[in-house]
Amino acid sequence: RVFSGLVHVKNPHLDSMEEDVLYHLDLGTKTHNLPAMFGDVKFVCVGGSPNRMRAFAQFMHKELGLAGDGKDLADICAGTDRYAMYRAGPVLSISHGMGIPSISIMLHELIKLLHHAKCRDVTIIRIGTSGGLGVEAGSVVITDMAVDSSFQPRFEQVVLDDVVVRSTELDRDLVEELLTCSKEIPDLPTLIGHTMCTYDFYEGQGRLDGALCSFSSEKKLEYLKRAYDAGVRNIEMESTAFAALCRLCGLRGESPPAVSASSCAPQPCPGLGAGFARE
Amino acid sequence: RVFSGLVHVKNPHLDSMEEDVLYHLDLGTKTHNLPAMFGDVKFVCVGGSPNRMRAFAQFMHKELGLAGDGKDLADICAGTDRYAMYRAGPVLSISHGMGIPSISIMLHELIKLLHHAKCRDVTIIRIGTSGGLGVEAGSVVITDMAVDSSFQPRFEQVVLDDVVVRSTELDRDLVEELLTCSKEIPDLPTLIGHTMCTYDFYEGQGRLDGALCSFSSEKKLEYLKRAYDAGVRNIEMESTAFAALCRLCGLRGESPPAVSASSCAPQPCPGLGAGFARE
Repeated sequence: RVFSGLVHVKNPHLDSMEEDVLYHLDLGTKTHNLPAMFGDVKFVCVGGSPNRMRAFAQFMHKELGLAGDGKDLADICAGTDRYAMYRAGPVLSISHGMGIPSISIMLHELIKLLHHAKCRDVTIIRIGTSGGLGVEAGSVVITDMAVDSSFQPRFEQVVLDDVVVRSTELDRDLVEELLTCSKEIPDLPTLIGHTMCTYDFYEGQGRLDGALCSFSSEKKLEYLKRAYDAGVRNIEMESTAFAALCRLCGLRGESPPAVSASSCAPQPCPGLGAGFARE
Repeated sequence: RVFSGLVHVKNPHLDSMEEDVLYHLDLGTKTHNLPAMFGDVKFVCVGGSPNRMRAFAQFMHKELGLAGDGKDLADICAGTDRYAMYRAGPVLSISHGMGIPSISIMLHELIKLLHHAKCRDVTIIRIGTSGGLGVEAGSVVITDMAVDSSFQPRFEQVVLDDVVVRSTELDRDLVEELLTCSKEIPDLPTLIGHTMCTYDFYEGQGRLDGALCSFSSEKKLEYLKRAYDAGVRNIEMESTAFAALCRLCGLRGESPPAVSASSCAPQPCPGLGAGFARE
């Protein structure tokens, strides 16, 4: 599976800009030599927690057999506390905070970063916590599509005051490939399913323990059952925006569409989740 | 201006719970003595950046003349990197990350924290970065109401798969009081206006420098002019959820409604913003 080509930005204004400041990453085209710093990046792994993304970079550092113990990896975005970014060889590990608005800001600036750095054949991987739905605790769910709270594979993006609907469907072939890979790892229960993305952790995901709760336990279970019947196997808060942005800024139309997948440990144990998108 | 009474939660399930784990704050009713830790809190200040909220707590520590230099204030939420929390006397300073989903998680757990701790007469203050609209650089905008991207004073909350519309209107009296206070501070240009809250920093706020941009500079200016004509003076990403949650969990109906206000430095300079809500 070979993807060639650069990361695409879909913004005609960018070419005429003298400088592009990636404000929330504390990087920029005039202050940093982005091709030198990032031009050879091949994998980007993103997840909510800065500490977890540092730990992931340290893990990759060790797995790749790079020099040193990886304990002192520097935060490339140390000048800001909005996001954290670490590098281990060709792998970039970046935090995105919680929720669609937070991951969207990071993805806009990351996609521009990869574009300015002239990166080629980049694979983007999302790691995040999610709640499982009717799956064994500790399972890995490989997402075939990200769906909204109505179980539809769409992301509604407000552009100025218009609502634009974007697709969140994913490459079925890569989903199957990931499932095949998972079978090589012992004791890793893995399945394919839809991932539901919500704007809210408490009222939006049917939790009974928020500061506000207007529904009964029965109504909650009825909703989660409908989600399960619609194919949802886990719930989180970033996947639709991730899928939509990766699709639009990938090589769509010139190469296979972007592919995303995610994994999770079920509720009530928060666990590790992952989403994958190849551009 | 005296407010009496406890913070309200609107969740009939909470009373029957044996334990309430405030997961994203790394606090809980069984693991921590919340009334002893927080019972005397009178002010809560929230803002996006953890570093800024630590700096704010250090500033308050000094302003209040508390013992020590305040440099070594401990992060009360040190067990998690989702949010950071510092305390200076009766003032709690907490970060909320970026965007509505991120601040919503924090507010749900903060409101329950204040409830469990039996806090009384708590004033909540939001500090955040925002972009100004047709106002002098460095101005403070005191928000009279938070509006959505259609300039309406409402917050659409998805509860399971229903959309519930919540009010984001604010107490006019406190807005005027804050304006009066601002006049005591020299060289602090201050005005009253609406604050627009968006789900997206780039396409949602008319920026021409995101990874995606489908509109012209003219269309952007036309939208921002419509916002200005509707009374919007600054734009950020949390105010509608903040106003709606504070209204609902305050003493609404039993005391003056929750009040919110925010301040900002205009674009393109990101600056300090603040929102205030008294419960």
